[in-house]
Amino acid sequence: MIDIDLLKKDLELIRKKSPLIHNITNLVVMNNTANGLLAIGASPVMAHSLNEVADMTKISSALVLNIGTLDTNQVQAMEKSAQMAKQLNIPIIFDPVGAGATPYRDECCRYILEKCTPTIIRGNASEIMAIQNTQTQTKGVDSTYHSVDALNAAKILAKETDAIVVVSGNIDYITDGHRVEEVKNGHPMMEKVTGMGCTSTAIIAAFAAINPNPFLAAVHGMVVMGVAGEIAATYSKGSGSLQMNFLDELYQLTGETLQNNIKL
Amino acid sequence: MIDIDLLKKDLELIRKKSPLIHNITNLVVMNNTANGLLAIGASPVMAHSLNEVADMTKISSALVLNIGTLDTNQVQAMEKSAQMAKQLNIPIIFDPVGAGATPYRDECCRYILEKCTPTIIRGNASEIMAIQNTQTQTKGVDSTYHSVDALNAAKILAKETDAIVVVSGNIDYITDGHRVEEVKNGHPMMEKVTGMGCTSTAIIAAFAAINPNPFLAAVHGMVVMGVAGEIAATYSKGSGSLQMNFLDELYQLTGETLQNNIKL
Amino acid sequence: MIDIDLLKKDLELIRKKSPLIHNITNLVVMNNTANGLLAIGASPVMAHSLNEVADMTKISSALVLNIGTLDTNQVQAMEKSAQMAKQLNIPIIFDPVGAGATPYRDECCRYILEKCTPTIIRGNASEIMAIQNTQTQTKGVDSTYHSVDALNAAKILAKETDAIVVVSGNIDYITDGHRVEEVKNGHPMMEKVTGMGCTSTAIIAAFAAINPNPFLAAVHGMVVMGVAGEIAATYSKGSGSLQMNFLDELYQLTGETLQNNIKL
Repeated sequence: MIDIDLLKKDLELIRKKSPLIHNITNLVVMNNTANGLLAIGASPVMAHSLNEVADMTKISSALVLNIGTLDTNQVQAMEKSAQMAKQLNIPIIFDPVGAGATPYRDECCRYILEKCTPTIIRGNASEIMAIQNTQTQTKGVDSTYHSVDALNAAKILAKETDAIVVVSGNIDYITDGHRVEEVKNGHPMMEKVTGMGCTSTAIIAAFAAINPNPFLAAVHGMVVMGVAGEIAATYSKGSGSLQMNFLDELYQLTGETLQNNIKL
Repeated sequence: MIDIDLLKKDLELIRKKSPLIHNITNLVVMNNTANGLLAIGASPVMAHSLNEVADMTKISSALVLNIGTLDTNQVQAMEKSAQMAKQLNIPIIFDPVGAGATPYRDECCRYILEKCTPTIIRGNASEIMAIQNTQTQTKGVDSTYHSVDALNAAKILAKETDAIVVVSGNIDYITDGHRVEEVKNGHPMMEKVTGMGCTSTAIIAAFAAINPNPFLAAVHGMVVMGVAGEIAATYSKGSGSLQMNFLDELYQLTGETLQNNIKL
Repeated sequence: MIDIDLLKKDLELIRKKSPLIHNITNLVVMNNTANGLLAIGASPVMAHSLNEVADMTKISSALVLNIGTLDTNQVQAMEKSAQMAKQLNIPIIFDPVGAGATPYRDECCRYILEKCTPTIIRGNASEIMAIQNTQTQTKGVDSTYHSVDALNAAKILAKETDAIVVVSGNIDYITDGHRVEEVKNGHPMMEKVTGMGCTSTAIIAAFAAINPNPFLAAVHGMVVMGVAGEIAATYSKGSGSLQMNFLDELYQLTGETLQNNIKL
């Protein structure tokens, strides 16, 4: 059961503390991720140079690793930042964009899981199944299906990695390998806006920055995404306006709106 | 003459098959290109690492090469992807952004034309003239003029390269060196939104992914761009809202809207 | 005192000449910067390869250096472009995004100040204080405070570097080390849109491209930003729509609107 009062308190804390979130992320979604973090009240920074990533992580309250447009340098930067984050107990949120699409992507995912030991992992069904080594073939970066298989893969992955695992989809599942929380808010049109998943990951990071319980942080992040996206979709003509309206809803989001719109 | 029934059928096919389009493209337009492809019903992926580009192309249905923010690594990635695409008969759509602006850009264009042998080339008048070696000086990445000269350059380029060549402008010209089709839809305000040309190239790729006839794919892509942009412009206050409304129109586009708005 | 007639004339000149602005800038804001420049009537180009940066600067009317997502290659590209710019008397506008956040960023700022000798420097209070070596710790890339200290730092920096220095904030200060102009337009919601500061820097560059007086160019750029942002904010539901409405206001901006809305 989701505790609305805790969720409200976390949202207030983000706005009060405006935690700095360090994103090593993909080139497609950087602008939207930054705007999503600003809209919720956090403070985004994007930095990837090996000369400064560790120092940037050092002053941050959460670290996002997103492999959407990965290359060798970026994976090195992720490792370096993650070392600093682990040293300082800064939560690491990993988004395995497109896992399963190419052997290199899978290899990097394995490497990141081993070397960066993320606190929270968020992906769609095919990505979570791919990094859990389930035999599946991702079709690009879309979330195309969702199933009991994905939840099972998520549970196994959570146990194997000691991370909280989030499977995004029609219903979002959040698991630590034992408990499972479901988030039922959201709207299918959100899949037609690039980087909505990546924004989820960043919003989870904002919650993880102020809540030491990563399971709650993941649940709270996904509820906020789902509620804001669902409300925005009701008055969006298409995917273009949804991208904008979603940011407006994040910006305007109140505890009351969450309470009135959450599907329990 | 544009066959509306074929165009409608192609649009339906894109939405049904949701073809994966691999984009090696510039950093300015990635978000919009991805959103444009999602809105029309295709599935975008951006990947540029030499470690995975060929594998990503292998599972894709079309490959976009766009040199807007080119560098040495990117050109290598393009060549590698193109080799895979040619091996598998995957169409290659080339966008010579800013051709004519610098010697390096021209050199890379020549290299890409030779090594990647694109199926379709789309640019504005000055870019097409520049890569056809006509003596002209591009002013940045804008389309500033349009002329008989550009169409002539396009015809020669098409014959020389065996590619379909598209010249974007007030009227778009599509040619295989012999036939010429004109697309009269569009709106001047579209030039004030960055990356509209790049989105055209990606939308053409979506059509090429499902139609083996590249001439038709290019025509269909440009009609869709022109109709969606023209309708969006009618209710856009400025270039900011046009960028958004254009995506909404792509998202909502039906065969009927195409039929009612195409200028023959 | 701001001379409205000079400002109006400059706006007309940008629209008439459509100067090419070469941006070596960060990956987060590229799309918005390009759209901002297009909306005001300028012509943006983004290019960073060492093989072409100098040639691109050569045909440009202003050069923007923005270190938001800096790395070694980018700093080299900046130096190369700046050498060309200095040779041809092309104004250089420097945006020290996130200065003070990491030692590497500070080191690069010092290097750029020395090697590129910018004509105009624009940052928020903490960035300007950081590059002027004032003891301060930047929190990411936000502008969190603003003070007499910042203006003092700006004056010292202007004298030390012989550049015009702009401190963005509630009130923007523009100084050559002696004179100080204040720009009072703007809206607090603008801080919740990523890259608004970066867009200011690019808009200043557009004015510097057509006005040989960098002090006036900086003032005019900041007034245009402030007026467009302030009007857009009056009808924006949140940060998402502000990003769009701001571009519409830039696109539609007239001398009359400036005259009616400027706060003197």
